[in-house]
Amino acid sequence: MNDAQQPPRIGILGGGQLARMMAIKAHELGFEPHIFSAKGTDPAAQVVRHFYRGELDNPDAVRAFLSQVDFATFESEFLDSEILIESEGAKQKIFPRPQTMGYLQDRLSQKELLVESKLNTLPFCSVTRFEEGAHFLGRHKQGIALKQRRFGYDGYGTFMVRSESELRELFQHWGLTPPALIAEPICKFKRELAVSIVRNHDGEVIFLPLVQTLQMDSRCKWVKGPVKHRGLDKLQARLKAFVKRINYVGIMAFELFEVGSELVINELAPRVHNSAHYSLDALSMDQFSYHVLAVLNAPLKEPRLLAPGFAMVNLLGTTSEPAQWSPPFDVKLHWYGKLDNRPGRKMGHLNALAKTADEALRMALKAERKFKL
Amino acid sequence: MNDAQQPPRIGILGGGQLARMMAIKAHELGFEPHIFSAKGTDPAAQVVRHFYRGELDNPDAVRAFLSQVDFATFESEFLDSEILIESEGAKQKIFPRPQTMGYLQDRLSQKELLVESKLNTLPFCSVTRFEEGAHFLGRHKQGIALKQRRFGYDGYGTFMVRSESELRELFQHWGLTPPALIAEPICKFKRELAVSIVRNHDGEVIFLPLVQTLQMDSRCKWVKGPVKHRGLDKLQARLKAFVKRINYVGIMAFELFEVGSELVINELAPRVHNSAHYSLDALSMDQFSYHVLAVLNAPLKEPRLLAPGFAMVNLLGTTSEPAQWSPPFDVKLHWYGKLDNRPGRKMGHLNALAKTADEALRMALKAERKFKL
Repeated sequence: MNDAQQPPRIGILGGGQLARMMAIKAHELGFEPHIFSAKGTDPAAQVVRHFYRGELDNPDAVRAFLSQVDFATFESEFLDSEILIESEGAKQKIFPRPQTMGYLQDRLSQKELLVESKLNTLPFCSVTRFEEGAHFLGRHKQGIALKQRRFGYDGYGTFMVRSESELRELFQHWGLTPPALIAEPICKFKRELAVSIVRNHDGEVIFLPLVQTLQMDSRCKWVKGPVKHRGLDKLQARLKAFVKRINYVGIMAFELFEVGSELVINELAPRVHNSAHYSLDALSMDQFSYHVLAVLNAPLKEPRLLAPGFAMVNLLGTTSEPAQWSPPFDVKLHWYGKLDNRPGRKMGHLNALAKTADEALRMALKAERKFKL
Repeated sequence: MNDAQQPPRIGILGGGQLARMMAIKAHELGFEPHIFSAKGTDPAAQVVRHFYRGELDNPDAVRAFLSQVDFATFESEFLDSEILIESEGAKQKIFPRPQTMGYLQDRLSQKELLVESKLNTLPFCSVTRFEEGAHFLGRHKQGIALKQRRFGYDGYGTFMVRSESELRELFQHWGLTPPALIAEPICKFKRELAVSIVRNHDGEVIFLPLVQTLQMDSRCKWVKGPVKHRGLDKLQARLKAFVKRINYVGIMAFELFEVGSELVINELAPRVHNSAHYSLDALSMDQFSYHVLAVLNAPLKEPRLLAPGFAMVNLLGTTSEPAQWSPPFDVKLHWYGKLDNRPGRKMGHLNALAKTADEALRMALKAERKFKL
């Protein structure tokens, strides 16, 4: 940075693949990262010398870690925001701010915030009892998605309900302690899209390109882009207002449904996100670098697209056998260094560049077949 | 790899920027690297958890390190090959083979090998006394370069001599113990070019693209490419024969002079090399990954070029003040994490992709101006 004598020390809470890629990019940008996570073999712990073993729910451990860095961020939005606020002490070090994260953790308050910023979302209602769900289902005959208000991800905590009997079964299963839920209609969309926005402390904002994503079994299978959409300008203007309104600092990813000619926000994630992993190779500046720079309040500029088309394919485990593969030569491999393969586990990803998004996707899917996961 | 239950452990002897970039790429390929170097703050030591502190001239330390890895390689060709051979024990773990490296370390035997493989080199002669140098200078009136036979790099150990009086001064300075030298005529070239070749244990060979390089003060300033040359096919055929002849395993870089319509080999380096740093972003597989894969005897395939033009600019220190910069957004920064800035020190590099090599070079040079080094 321009006026620092020594580069600021950046701490990352969490040791998974998102923290790992952020750490590698921090190294390449000249900011040596510090990793806080539970195991020394965690993906991010493998790529640093400044590793602090600790549990994220232990305020003393988090406090000791934060005392040794100038800025900190996290890879999961499901941390206990009160522990973080308590741990950082007088100086605000953690970005995005834990309070903001806490507010966004609850799908109900998150939805309300989005609606207040005039962003398109699906209709929704809070559901705590069978009757509330049944009433909402009555108005949305195609079926509804019941989602836990907190701590749901990759399909965990989401329940597709197409009939009152299915709904009754769920509530019988929960008995006296159903989770706090929101209900949304099951959405018939043309495509699923995604876009990420980055904002620094000074309020500068940039966007990453709009991309198409494909989910299978509630997990991202692939991403391709860039995608054009005539609703993008309007969406971007409102997203900009939204992150300003909540004084957000860092990167935020939005998963979108394309419905008719509209872009409807399905979910958001206040962090680096699988839908932007392509950026490691397809953009002149990747999402991990952007997030680090925003957290450090560096000036921000738009990235350049390095190829007319790009694609990302997730390498998902299918067994518990050790992964086997032969290295791909025409696409880029990003392996996460997880000790164990498991069905559905994100083990790595492949990035491809080509003349078109579809050609890039074909290349990445072809390379994926060389992996036995 | 296809038949391994656990990925092989790869050791890297050395802790500088070449080892650092190799380590990062080994991580991304799924082979967790082990670093052996003198200081825990060395560039490569920062990006691993498996760090072994030790001196490269200590056989016991090297032996202990090698016992914990399956394969090993190095970032400098100036290691003591006998220590390496003695340290690895019965199993051949180090590639390229230390014997080969030992042979190539001596510019005289290196030259003889190249000539035997019918590769174009500059005329040369061994020089140990003033009279030998004077005789060679008499035949090359434009001047001669005297190069130490061993341990010269980045201009260290190279002496440009344009007159007999200059030559006499040098030998007077050396007195009774002149270094072993070779003499070459100072070469009027059109351009300096470079190319790297990769060979695995099975003898599979691939080439990286031909590039142009610019040296200033005997240090690489920039690289751009790809470059076309009608002598390339012939050169590649002979280089292929050369690496086969010496049963070389790993990547080898060749610095070339373009003289008339000929490509003449100036120097070679049996390792990853500054002239191929562009490959991190401009190719579908970079030189560090290729080297690791060749050392592990993975199958090799040619890389894809990811843009029509590319360039690399070295970020060289000019003072001993801490480096200051604002991050570039349209080119890729690779910072080396060196603790101290120093005049002439390689602190990092910038890679640019564009429609032409010259456009990429302009972009990288423009971004370089944002660095106060």
